[in-house]
Amino acid sequence: MKQPGLLQAGQPEIDLLYNRLAVKSEDFHTDRFHLKHLCALPGRFADFSLAANDFFLDYSRQRLDNEALALLFEAAEATGALEKFREMTRGNLVNTTEKRAALHMATRASESSASKQPLTIDGHDVNAGINRVNAEIRDFVENVHTGRLTGTSGSPFSDAVVVGIGGSYLGCEFVYHAMGPSMDRRIALHFLPNVDIDDFAGIISRVNPEKTLWIIISKSYTTTETMANLNQVLAFLNAEGLSPKDHVVTVTAKGSPGDDPENPVLASFHMFDFIGGRYSVSSAVGGVPLGLAYGWEGFRRFLDGCRCMDTHALSAPVHENIPLTAALISIWNKHFLGYPAQAIIPYASRLSRLAPHIQQLYMESIGKSVSFSGKELRHPAGSIIFGEPGTNAQHSFFQLAHQGPAFPIDFIGVAVPGFSGPQAQSKGVTNHQELWANLLAQARALALGRDNEDPARRFKGNRPCSIIMLNDLEPESIGQLLAFYEARTIFEGFILGINPFDQFGVELGKVMAGDLRREIAARNQDTDHDFSHLDAPDQFYLDMVFKKNIPGK
Amino acid sequence: MKQPGLLQAGQPEIDLLYNRLAVKSEDFHTDRFHLKHLCALPGRFADFSLAANDFFLDYSRQRLDNEALALLFEAAEATGALEKFREMTRGNLVNTTEKRAALHMATRASESSASKQPLTIDGHDVNAGINRVNAEIRDFVENVHTGRLTGTSGSPFSDAVVVGIGGSYLGCEFVYHAMGPSMDRRIALHFLPNVDIDDFAGIISRVNPEKTLWIIISKSYTTTETMANLNQVLAFLNAEGLSPKDHVVTVTAKGSPGDDPENPVLASFHMFDFIGGRYSVSSAVGGVPLGLAYGWEGFRRFLDGCRCMDTHALSAPVHENIPLTAALISIWNKHFLGYPAQAIIPYASRLSRLAPHIQQLYMESIGKSVSFSGKELRHPAGSIIFGEPGTNAQHSFFQLAHQGPAFPIDFIGVAVPGFSGPQAQSKGVTNHQELWANLLAQARALALGRDNEDPARRFKGNRPCSIIMLNDLEPESIGQLLAFYEARTIFEGFILGINPFDQFGVELGKVMAGDLRREIAARNQDTDHDFSHLDAPDQFYLDMVFKKNIPGK
Repeated sequence: MKQPGLLQAGQPEIDLLYNRLAVKSEDFHTDRFHLKHLCALPGRFADFSLAANDFFLDYSRQRLDNEALALLFEAAEATGALEKFREMTRGNLVNTTEKRAALHMATRASESSASKQPLTIDGHDVNAGINRVNAEIRDFVENVHTGRLTGTSGSPFSDAVVVGIGGSYLGCEFVYHAMGPSMDRRIALHFLPNVDIDDFAGIISRVNPEKTLWIIISKSYTTTETMANLNQVLAFLNAEGLSPKDHVVTVTAKGSPGDDPENPVLASFHMFDFIGGRYSVSSAVGGVPLGLAYGWEGFRRFLDGCRCMDTHALSAPVHENIPLTAALISIWNKHFLGYPAQAIIPYASRLSRLAPHIQQLYMESIGKSVSFSGKELRHPAGSIIFGEPGTNAQHSFFQLAHQGPAFPIDFIGVAVPGFSGPQAQSKGVTNHQELWANLLAQARALALGRDNEDPARRFKGNRPCSIIMLNDLEPESIGQLLAFYEARTIFEGFILGINPFDQFGVELGKVMAGDLRREIAARNQDTDHDFSHLDAPDQFYLDMVFKKNIPGK
Repeated sequence: MKQPGLLQAGQPEIDLLYNRLAVKSEDFHTDRFHLKHLCALPGRFADFSLAANDFFLDYSRQRLDNEALALLFEAAEATGALEKFREMTRGNLVNTTEKRAALHMATRASESSASKQPLTIDGHDVNAGINRVNAEIRDFVENVHTGRLTGTSGSPFSDAVVVGIGGSYLGCEFVYHAMGPSMDRRIALHFLPNVDIDDFAGIISRVNPEKTLWIIISKSYTTTETMANLNQVLAFLNAEGLSPKDHVVTVTAKGSPGDDPENPVLASFHMFDFIGGRYSVSSAVGGVPLGLAYGWEGFRRFLDGCRCMDTHALSAPVHENIPLTAALISIWNKHFLGYPAQAIIPYASRLSRLAPHIQQLYMESIGKSVSFSGKELRHPAGSIIFGEPGTNAQHSFFQLAHQGPAFPIDFIGVAVPGFSGPQAQSKGVTNHQELWANLLAQARALALGRDNEDPARRFKGNRPCSIIMLNDLEPESIGQLLAFYEARTIFEGFILGINPFDQFGVELGKVMAGDLRREIAARNQDTDHDFSHLDAPDQFYLDMVFKKNIPGK
């Protein structure tokens, strides 16, 4: 397969385009291209914003003009990103290094007319497989909610603990909080990603074990942290006189140790090889816990929202494609304007776990140094994503955003608030209106700045942002937002020429942790095992872990 | 006052030093200075680590050699950072732009022998004032715990909600979670920083109003978000038939609207002008909620830990000074090696709110473009701080950390785990040992890397980190950790030549939010008030807020 990419040198047409973009970016070092001038151009807001299906992206305060944008669109065309995105949904092995398809979008298309075409991977019908798992989840969730399934003691379930790390919980946690208050919550969720024993202790102090389900999520069922926590869970259930076959649910690959009739559990749901962890919220990874929390219907409405954005991403032409445009802006900001980071600032507390999810989704997908075909990139790809909800963020790190080294921001606003109860007004506005006054003020202040004779009070402006507006925080809108960032991430990978689906960068740490774990295990077995063959820091720290105090130097 | 600073050009001695550092940094672009070589030097670990009072800093995997370090220490000497730090504790107006002292360290010194010298600001005895407030908090907390103070209905208090934003809650939230499970918790804390009404709704769904205290924290008692939330609280108490004089506590400046006998509250505790919000955890801002949660004794132990680090920071010579050395490393990484961000990764879930607190502390203190004396800096100061606990972070953004654009990391490990119950072992190690295996493996993998014939599996290494080791998670250790980052931040400001205590960069957003708030309030008053005089984006969004849906474009 031809794998063109903007960060891979040595392809004449694309090299030329890269150079034209680099030259064009120099314009933006001049005052003439300051955002205060760009924003004053007639038609700026209308020309630099896109809407589709109640999802609105305003990039009028990005440091872009028509010429830069045209070059970026050329890059999208030259790299065939949209075509590749479509191929992805047809089951092509776009995850080339791992020789896998990337079919997370099938989880929300499988029941719709969008999936009329048969989709086969290794002889298996993808849509049929997904529909079967979804039907199993739907039945299971209903059996829990109606009390047909109960714990060992006969109590109905009130709580479920998601035991999974990284992509096995971050997306689910985001959606759980985002859908929160406006839904009828049937089961409260808790998240146990970390191997830190304090987390396990915290969770067992909060739940009634007789009424608690444990959802173990790991594709391979070998993830170290998840298996260590599973061992804690099994010991705990045993001590409580509760049986795993009543209280444990697994979400795992078919045939993994978690899908073994020798180890009976209450239910087991399959994950597929063609869906990577960080893209798995709309699969059983999200479906089981979110279905338990908000009912299958609640989860289905979320899938509808995802599908709505997917359909747009697949069908909108390059110039009107919202996630594709956002990907181009991200590329421009990082690789041509030189911004090393991006912030995500939702003015909605219910979206407070969006930034941690997108941090994982994006940084694990795009943080690469080699192209699809294994060539070294012009420079490493990916930027740092971080964020807190507004207005909290204003009182935390916005000093630096306004007067320190600049970084672009995605502001997210919600037209209709989730809360529908009575609101007191302060200074003549509701709390929800106060959020909007602040969001708009920040976007304006960052872009335009303001001079002041006191240098400490001077704002140079010219700091870029986008504004994303959602109509509301209903499940459909949450789905659109999630699918927007997924598509944006994938488009960015395809345009840059990197594989957004692998993560070989986490392998070395795992290997080295295994080496150290064997050292520790050996000492646990034999107190005479010493660490003197290790290098100085490892020796020192492992001695500390066993001596449990720090000597003076 | 002479205000030398490394980022301010035009001071011959310091210009020379800056240039020597810049020249020296070029060495580190060569393979000879790769961390795999530096770490192999004999004595490296012993020479590049410091310990004091159970606090250990290992910077052996920072991209530094003796020559670079010597130049950095020269910069600390030339800028008089340590002397200035000492002057700060003597009440000098080190916050020059606001003409204020910065005496947060007095809150933990006031009762100790360290405060034998009288300290007077504007004719007031600082230590006496702090001791008086602390005694008031101690009595109040005891009266709540013993049930002498109750709610309107006579119920003892079980919960307290901290209503405050930015520095009024982030530090307290960090310490609350960090001290968590090992303490006897008397009162559960909740945090209500954001103006988002969903947050208020969430809190009132979780607490019993008859047993709940509301702690309103705002120095000026005019902070928009906090006042808007106070209005919600007052309306809520009124609807519940509860009185503010039984349920509301204020922490505010003497004579503010929150300290007005006309508005009776249960208790009011004073904040002082000489303690900035982001440095206020050890004042009444932390003392009232944390004293309620863990007893005055628990809070006092935390103060002891802070004082222990303060004493070290004040008395240790430059070359042995832990926070000063950490500040120099931060400066080197940002301004000479060019890293735009720093991550804080504690391998202890109880420290999960450390990164958000330090994000605020550091980015608001150091994110500046002008020097103490109002001169433009060579380039803007400050870097982005972000982080999640390990091992969670490994499954989130460590792909980018290993193979994307590099950033330095502070790893934090704890020798003795907080949890003392029985632990199942997995793969021969406890969960706590698993955390250490991972921390050490990550530090090693980032520094050393590993070659591989497959470019996708190649790790170049040479990615810097420090390891901070705490003995345990007792309150004294939490205090040391907090005071370490405070002192590091202040030293960095003093060496760079910027004021780490002001935050003029947040002013413009507030002004512009006020303008927009008035527009919204006018429309709330008069439905004929239109927004056509505003610019296109503001007009569009405000119309949306009132129409509550997004039209197609």
